[in-house]
This record gives sequence, C-alpha cells and structure tokens, in this order.
Amino acid sequence: MNYPKKFNDLIQAFQKLPGVGAKTAERYAYTMLDWDPETLNDFLDAMNHMKTGIQRCKICGNLSSGEKCSICADPDRNRNMICVVESPKDIAAIESMQEYNGVYHVLNGTINMKKGILPDQLNIQSLLDRINEETQEVILATDPTMDGETTALYIEKLLKDKVKITRLAYGIPIGGHLDYTDSLTLLRAFQGRK
Amino acid sequence: MNYPKKFNDLIQAFQKLPGVGAKTAERYAYTMLDWDPETLNDFLDAMNHMKTGIQRCKICGNLSSGEKCSICADPDRNRNMICVVESPKDIAAIESMQEYNGVYHVLNGTINMKKGILPDQLNIQSLLDRINEETQEVILATDPTMDGETTALYIEKLLKDKVKITRLAYGIPIGGHLDYTDSLTLLRAFQGRK
Repeated sequence: MNYPKKFNDLIQAFQKLPGVGAKTAERYAYTMLDWDPETLNDFLDAMNHMKTGIQRCKICGNLSSGEKCSICADPDRNRNMICVVESPKDIAAIESMQEYNGVYHVLNGTINMKKGILPDQLNIQSLLDRINEETQEVILATDPTMDGETTALYIEKLLKDKVKITRLAYGIPIGGHLDYTDSLTLLRAFQGRK
Repeated sequence: MNYPKKFNDLIQAFQKLPGVGAKTAERYAYTMLDWDPETLNDFLDAMNHMKTGIQRCKICGNLSSGEKCSICADPDRNRNMICVVESPKDIAAIESMQEYNGVYHVLNGTINMKKGILPDQLNIQSLLDRINEETQEVILATDPTMDGETTALYIEKLLKDKVKITRLAYGIPIGGHLDYTDSLTLLRAFQGRK
C-alpha cells in the first residue's frame, strides 16, 4: 500500500495482536486517525502504562499494580487455601463466582513438552516455597485439557505427602445437553457420579 | 473484574477500537502482557508516532509523513487530472490498480445531513482552490451510496462550468452474477449499457 511509513508501521503493529489481519489492522489505524487529541492521549497513556504500571504479584504471580496483588494484600482472605490456576484470567473467572475466599497461585502456563515448556519455566517452585504448616488445602484448578491435566498431575506428585490436594469437579455443564456433550466429559461425569 | 486499575484501563482503551468488545480487548491486553520488551517497545513506538508522525498532505488531504504526500510530491504525476475520493483508503485501492497516474483530492467524509456533516466540514473549498486552467478533468470517485452520491452531485454543481467532470462507471462487478445483483446496481448497469 502507498501509505506513509509511520502509518504502515502502525498497521503492522496492530497485526501483532491475536486474530488481527491486514484489513482489521487498517481499520483500527484509521479509527485512531479520526480520534480527537483527548481520546488519542487516553489511549496512548493506557498503552504506555503497560511498561511500568502492571506488575506480577511477588507472592502469587497475579497481575498487580504494586508488589502484592489486591488478593494477597487483603487481610480477610483465608491463607490456608491456595487455588492453583494457569493464568490471571482464571482468577477473574473464579472471583466473579463470589464464593471462594482463599488465595491463589498463578503458574503462568502449563507444562508442554512439544512447545518446550518445562516445569522449571512455570511458577511451581514458588508454590512449593509457599506451602507451610498453615496450608490446609491446595486446589488444582488447571484447565481440563491435556496440558492442564499433565501439569496438575505433576504438582500433585510433588505435594501429595505434604498437604491435602483437591481438583475441581468435571462433568456436564449446567444447561448443557447430554447429546451435545463430548464423550470424555461424559465419561468424567459418569466416573464422578454421586 | 478484579484486575489492577492500569490493566482495566488498557482493556477499556482497546474497546475504543471498532468491533472490539470486552472479551477481545481482554485477549489483546493479555497478549501485550506476554510480549518481550522489544516487541512491546516496537508496538508502543508505532502507536506513539500517531501523534506526530502522520500528517495530512497540505495539497490533497492524503496521509503523509511531511507537508506533501508521496503522490503530490511525485513529479511524474499528471496534475491535469484530479480524482476526488472520500478517504485515503480509497487512494490505496485506486493505486493498487496501477493504472491511474493523476493526483487525488481527499474530501475526508461525505455530506450527511442526519449526522450534521455539511459541505463546509469537508475539504471541498480546498478542491475549488486547486482547480485552475491546467486542470482538465475532475473524476468524482465517491462511493455509490446515498451520501457519496449526494456529495458528488454537490461538487458537480459547483464545478460543472469550470472543468470537465466524470464519474466512475457503475454496474455489475466482474465475476458477479445477475441474479445476486441488487436492483439498483442492475438499473445502473442497464442505464450505462454501451
């Protein structure tokens, strides 16, 4: 395209975002062009804060604006329960349930031999370091995928003699239909029947 | 959501882009989090150049990195023909055809009474000012929409005594099918038969 270099750079930058192709990136770039200076400044400020404004909690690895995330800093949280998740996104999902009052530990990924992600690249050591006499339960809430299961099994092996370990229940989702449920989920639902 | 404020700001900033909702914005924000510092810097640089690096050509209103756009600065361009378009996007489309060698004039929108966009908010005056004895032809290449037609008619009225005015041909697109063509396009194809 015959655009000025800076505009082409902008279009290419947008294409680094997931699922954004050339046409969408062009549309985003044109939208930015049409913004008034105030909107543009707000947008750029929010982007630029990425560099310094968002950190990882030193304790659990959750997103945080300081050394400790809002959950680890909350004195009302029950530190005897640690829920282990893959990503801060999962924390947001569990928090929206408004039921769990323990703390979290973010692994920041899953073990994946194919992609070369080994246990020592995840926040597993810091989880082991956190566990002490106070810890009553570790809930493994990784995704029920191949990688999530592998990771959960690995952590279970490391911790099973030290602390009580639980997994989330798997089964048919509420509102789901038997005939639309995949066979693995159905198998889990049968195995887990009460 | 229970995210740090800066991260929420980022998610909200992304939602200003067209067609981006909360989930997509969250996905973009997480993608940015995972970038290495170099990728992040490149991205932020491209964004920040929006403020200063991209200007409008003083002559035609096209996107430009300086006072004049690459087309207006090109001495090989035929200045006797001016193609009037709605947006710089249209220039990119016409240029990709590699056939037109004249110059352009970007209106930066169309007349739209409903949205309160009147002729004096568009680059119409600067078009009138550009036209001189040298100008042989003005090609009105606005979109064949209600607004585009209105704008073309308005400009035609202003210029018809001064210069030769042409419009793009309307009809069935190459590869199109008669039975899938809307009746207005078909009507234009019949009226324009040769």
